[in-house]
Amino acid sequence: MRTVDTLQDIQDMARGAVLLGTGGGGDPYIGELFLQAQLKHGRKARIVDVNEVDDEAFVLSIAGIGAPSAMVEHLVSDKLLLKLLGRAEAFYGRRVDTLISAEIGGVNSMFPLALSAISGVPVVDADGVGRAIPHIEMTTFSILGVKATPCLVMDENGNVATLEATDDRTAEDVIRGITAALGASIYGALYPMSGRQMKATAVRGTLDETLRIGQVIRLGRESSEDLFADLLAYLGRNGRMAKILFDGKITDVTHETRDGWHFGRATLGALGDGSDMFTVDFQNEFTVARLNGRTVTIVPDLITILDRETGEPLTGERLAYGQRVKVLGYAADPLLRLPESLEVLGPRMFGLDEDFRPIEALSGD
Amino acid sequence: MRTVDTLQDIQDMARGAVLLGTGGGGDPYIGELFLQAQLKHGRKARIVDVNEVDDEAFVLSIAGIGAPSAMVEHLVSDKLLLKLLGRAEAFYGRRVDTLISAEIGGVNSMFPLALSAISGVPVVDADGVGRAIPHIEMTTFSILGVKATPCLVMDENGNVATLEATDDRTAEDVIRGITAALGASIYGALYPMSGRQMKATAVRGTLDETLRIGQVIRLGRESSEDLFADLLAYLGRNGRMAKILFDGKITDVTHETRDGWHFGRATLGALGDGSDMFTVDFQNEFTVARLNGRTVTIVPDLITILDRETGEPLTGERLAYGQRVKVLGYAADPLLRLPESLEVLGPRMFGLDEDFRPIEALSGD
Repeated sequence: MRTVDTLQDIQDMARGAVLLGTGGGGDPYIGELFLQAQLKHGRKARIVDVNEVDDEAFVLSIAGIGAPSAMVEHLVSDKLLLKLLGRAEAFYGRRVDTLISAEIGGVNSMFPLALSAISGVPVVDADGVGRAIPHIEMTTFSILGVKATPCLVMDENGNVATLEATDDRTAEDVIRGITAALGASIYGALYPMSGRQMKATAVRGTLDETLRIGQVIRLGRESSEDLFADLLAYLGRNGRMAKILFDGKITDVTHETRDGWHFGRATLGALGDGSDMFTVDFQNEFTVARLNGRTVTIVPDLITILDRETGEPLTGERLAYGQRVKVLGYAADPLLRLPESLEVLGPRMFGLDEDFRPIEALSGD
Repeated sequence: MRTVDTLQDIQDMARGAVLLGTGGGGDPYIGELFLQAQLKHGRKARIVDVNEVDDEAFVLSIAGIGAPSAMVEHLVSDKLLLKLLGRAEAFYGRRVDTLISAEIGGVNSMFPLALSAISGVPVVDADGVGRAIPHIEMTTFSILGVKATPCLVMDENGNVATLEATDDRTAEDVIRGITAALGASIYGALYPMSGRQMKATAVRGTLDETLRIGQVIRLGRESSEDLFADLLAYLGRNGRMAKILFDGKITDVTHETRDGWHFGRATLGALGDGSDMFTVDFQNEFTVARLNGRTVTIVPDLITILDRETGEPLTGERLAYGQRVKVLGYAADPLLRLPESLEVLGPRMFGLDEDFRPIEALSGD
């Protein structure tokens, strides 16, 4: 067990969460602010390793649900998070022993930590996808057999709903309908599971990964000759491929919010007089990166756009004309590349007309 | 306490429910079929008067929710209704003593009777509006202070949701979102209340009214010289105005299903060489009837279109070019004309740009 002790740690984790958010997942900044306020009151989030969780423990995800842009507008309060925990415990009829992020990328890395700081319930160093994803049925929990429901959702006004769905795709549809009715941003307690189930289905070590990524970028910025080389070295530490896909500037960004989703495309050009054209499509998260029309990284592998000077990872909403950026490609956790996973979160589930090919194969030219 | 003993009674009640459905509320035919099947198995629905219900009794509404057209496509099963009752009792933590219709008009008059036949729980001779209405917050229960939530909804596949909403307008939005996600037709247990609350908020005697209306039309058709005169005499028995607004044939009907609602307009012309033009607009239910552009009856007063030969009331979906019909106007129950009621179910809540005027005033020419 360890605690999150410093503002710097929180900021580093938020930065790492944006990188793993692959452009989506909501901006962790609001969670970061909130967690900082807790720290000022002497309340520290507690983190435990997967192996420290008892097989019989009751593990639960706490997540913000809704359009990222709406989530930024609604500030979460400690009262709301505590009420969510209390209502969830009453609903499930037992105390929650361990919290877990449904998705580590973006703001949902922060809510369990914030609730941990307030309640004292520890967060396990793992999550349900190792990145950000837009659908409830796209977590490794869902894919490997832990259902998202029975679940409980609520908003800041005191509306509370519970759901028991036949499958997680239906849960996604129903919760999306509830979210839209309640103003596009709600909070949920979902994926109730045992410690044993968590160990069998979670992507491990991802909370620590956010911290390390944030640190590498910050330290690289302060003192390294090449922070991107440091970052690639860290990400590739276990043989997972990480590479810079493109280095250039944003020449165009289209945004569209439709049916509660954030769609768009960023187009990049070379910095000098190169004629290469690079595009990154997004549907909440970045889904496919193409160099001159040829796919170079595709979902569920991770695509992240970073400021080319500071290495700061950028959310899709923050992309703007003229920004000078580097685009990072990063192999997804092996759990996401299983055939059963690709059926649920492969390219075709994002309306893309091509099959998944790993970044290692796409960059083998 | 009395029971619904004959197929004829069931058919009469269904006919009366279509009249009070004012074109909407779903076709009671599916409920009628279902209730007939129960009767064949010797299971009879039980009806109690309002005064027979104990003040401390637990009274609950059982209703189908969704687009009427979708509800016709989904046949309800006795298993589903029993499961709904069982889940509701577990959710509320007590046995249901008395069932009540949320709205007597249309199919929702039948579901509580059907569940009564299966479960033995009696239905009280009353409802929450005395007609059909399209929104959860439009019942006299809601208007006079009984909340629709906490409520429980489910579909035939086993998806179950509960909701605790800050107000019934929000409940309407959330349940509409859930309904859309689950395929446009679900079943709900809502408006949990005491017998005392029921007595203070319900529109009384409406289950009996469906039976009497159905009987008057049937008997009039068989043996009366003027079944419409008989019908008007029955409806006007307590001083409420009922009148034939127009006698003619349908010259045009437009239908549109949008956002789960059924919109449209029926245009009627005189039978002979008269030049009068009559229109009836609908939004699930008929909302306004106009003679040569002048409003003659407007929501919440009731508008019903009946076959001019048989007196059979017609749902909005069944209207077709060439039908020869009479249009009936009928004063709403006084509870619906209270200022607080008109704020919730007056013309402006249906997008009409005029205030409510009672049929008595509109026909005083």
